[in-house]
Amino acid sequence: MADTHPPDDVRGRGFRRRATLAEALARVDAATAALPARPAAPAAGGVLAQAVVAAADHPPGPVALWDGYAVRAADTLGADTYNPLSLFPGAAVAVAAGESLPPGTDAVVPVESAVASPPGIEVAEAVAPGHGVLGRGEMAAAGAELLPAGRILRPQDVALLAALGVARVAAVPAPRVRILIAGGPRGGAADADTPLLAALVARDGGVAECAGPLPADRAALAAELRRPGADLILLAGRSGVGPDDVAPLALADAGGLALHGLALRPGGSGGLGHAGGVPVVLLPGDPAACWAVYEALGGRAVRRLAGRPAGLPHPAVRRRARRKLVSEIGVAEFYRVRLAGDDGVEPLASAAVPGAAALARADGFVLIPAQSEGVAPGDETTVRLYDGSAAGLW
Amino acid sequence: MADTHPPDDVRGRGFRRRATLAEALARVDAATAALPARPAAPAAGGVLAQAVVAAADHPPGPVALWDGYAVRAADTLGADTYNPLSLFPGAAVAVAAGESLPPGTDAVVPVESAVASPPGIEVAEAVAPGHGVLGRGEMAAAGAELLPAGRILRPQDVALLAALGVARVAAVPAPRVRILIAGGPRGGAADADTPLLAALVARDGGVAECAGPLPADRAALAAELRRPGADLILLAGRSGVGPDDVAPLALADAGGLALHGLALRPGGSGGLGHAGGVPVVLLPGDPAACWAVYEALGGRAVRRLAGRPAGLPHPAVRRRARRKLVSEIGVAEFYRVRLAGDDGVEPLASAAVPGAAALARADGFVLIPAQSEGVAPGDETTVRLYDGSAAGLW
Repeated sequence: MADTHPPDDVRGRGFRRRATLAEALARVDAATAALPARPAAPAAGGVLAQAVVAAADHPPGPVALWDGYAVRAADTLGADTYNPLSLFPGAAVAVAAGESLPPGTDAVVPVESAVASPPGIEVAEAVAPGHGVLGRGEMAAAGAELLPAGRILRPQDVALLAALGVARVAAVPAPRVRILIAGGPRGGAADADTPLLAALVARDGGVAECAGPLPADRAALAAELRRPGADLILLAGRSGVGPDDVAPLALADAGGLALHGLALRPGGSGGLGHAGGVPVVLLPGDPAACWAVYEALGGRAVRRLAGRPAGLPHPAVRRRARRKLVSEIGVAEFYRVRLAGDDGVEPLASAAVPGAAALARADGFVLIPAQSEGVAPGDETTVRLYDGSAAGLW
Repeated sequence: MADTHPPDDVRGRGFRRRATLAEALARVDAATAALPARPAAPAAGGVLAQAVVAAADHPPGPVALWDGYAVRAADTLGADTYNPLSLFPGAAVAVAAGESLPPGTDAVVPVESAVASPPGIEVAEAVAPGHGVLGRGEMAAAGAELLPAGRILRPQDVALLAALGVARVAAVPAPRVRILIAGGPRGGAADADTPLLAALVARDGGVAECAGPLPADRAALAAELRRPGADLILLAGRSGVGPDDVAPLALADAGGLALHGLALRPGGSGGLGHAGGVPVVLLPGDPAACWAVYEALGGRAVRRLAGRPAGLPHPAVRRRARRKLVSEIGVAEFYRVRLAGDDGVEPLASAAVPGAAALARADGFVLIPAQSEGVAPGDETTVRLYDGSAAGLW
């Protein structure tokens, strides 16, 4: 977000031009990439910077697949329930699942097919060589890729690495995301943007650093923007055209304002810039508009820095509009929507409705691209869900 | 899981009978319910025990929807770009988005439609009453339900509660889940079950308490099971029919073993019981089998205690089997599978393959019910995904 220009002061005037979402996304992508890898203990949710390859064969030799008796398979030839065969100690060795096979044995008779008959056992099943045995390298052969680069570690991945004794992996560190709230809500309302952004940043794999609302002071905000230690800064509030909307000016002072004003609704006063080389997303203070700019731009920046897939992390389903979703040509619009019946969707609130209430009532959203006039009743559209369970996805 | 009986000692003998998954699930459901609600600060991922209702109208009076000038709409009649109307101070008051409307005004002319013309402004747009205004209670009317009981709080829900000054909600506390590893892996391998179960418990809304592998000692394990402070215990390892498989006996000593042996593959040596009134899930030590019993029974117990939807939390998609998935009648089987092409799925490993490697390589699993012989090539089946992105769900 380094290609900047002296900012227009839009206060009391309004925006002369608003950037398209495509233009803003291109800037986000140019300014963000996965952070340099660091060695880290494997943890669920961490992101692998490099593939993990098996250093040796696992298991290192044949092991029992179940509890029973390790035998030489040839010794059991002809055994069945009616004609059990006696095997003496040494010819049948008790083993538990996971234990190495004693030398000279090549199969495991399960406990259920054997009866202790001191000093040996009676076997009631003929087994083939390899029966009940996991061979050397069958779990993972030396050199085989265990987990690919880019993998967001799952519980079972962490288990696999633990089982194989892999104590450190090359991981993409979680980006440190500074959340600066310029001025806080007008009229003395409580700050909703800090908890909103902190939770969204955590969802996308970042670590939020929150300071709570700061004074709407240009110099103080610029100083907070310049302070080192962040991989990304979200600067929310005082982004508009009112007399105290100093956030864009502070961003210009601290580094540069690459664009201000988005062809996006809600979120038209959002922008992008940088402060000392750190990318900065400028977000409106109203929670609905703040959410929209985060989902459109901020989340993508966090995910790219975190090495995660850049796209929206919401499950997408196709639904038919029950009512018209009107949208202005040239402006991308976030409609907050509710699922209706088996295959329908209906708008809950127009893009102009502020606050978090309509966000919280919605099952998800429809993002109408700038070139579209909206969705006609009965037409299919893509709904992004906050929670897949709302659509019976699981 | 209170209906118990003296345990069979299956060691060296094998299971005489294995419980069906349906029977085990019924026992899990009978033994678990959402923990009693407690007041808590709203946090993303927390679960509401009661609906949250608006205590007052929000906003408490009309506020500006955008930056501009609050006016009496009637005063702007006839104004347009070619015939701007002059309004004097007092008749047009500068307001920022979110500010209360001054008494006597009923609309907001946006900044873009006004030009300062000291001492007043020139208005280039005729506005109707209510234009640019959010009326009293339009965000949330007093008494309206803001969030339903059972809601897993989303980022925007937390923002809404913050905006409305709701500092405490009635929340279902996160269940405390004690993870006891009986004996640890055989042959000196590293413990994979602790990281596996800890991450799965966190996924399902619980708080894991891990002690690492304990000696395979009946009395020591019983003491750990009896120790107070857990809402659920996962007892993993030494559950089978080998000579040192003492976990079921320790569970019987500590409270009761309701069932031991499941018609489930992998996971056949799993079970259920209780220790001093605390439900206990008995899981095999092999990571693949441990995973299967957790997904089948343990996760459901955690989610029910946490007040979450009880069903599997994996996105489900329908896919066609590329190869046969063979399954034994009377046994439910977890097939670890990989998605293939646009609409296909193929098995990665039979249910007998132990360890975490096949779990980690898989995109998800197919759970074949006990009454099914499996899935024929070309037939559709339900695939549960570890991560919805694998199927292009988002």
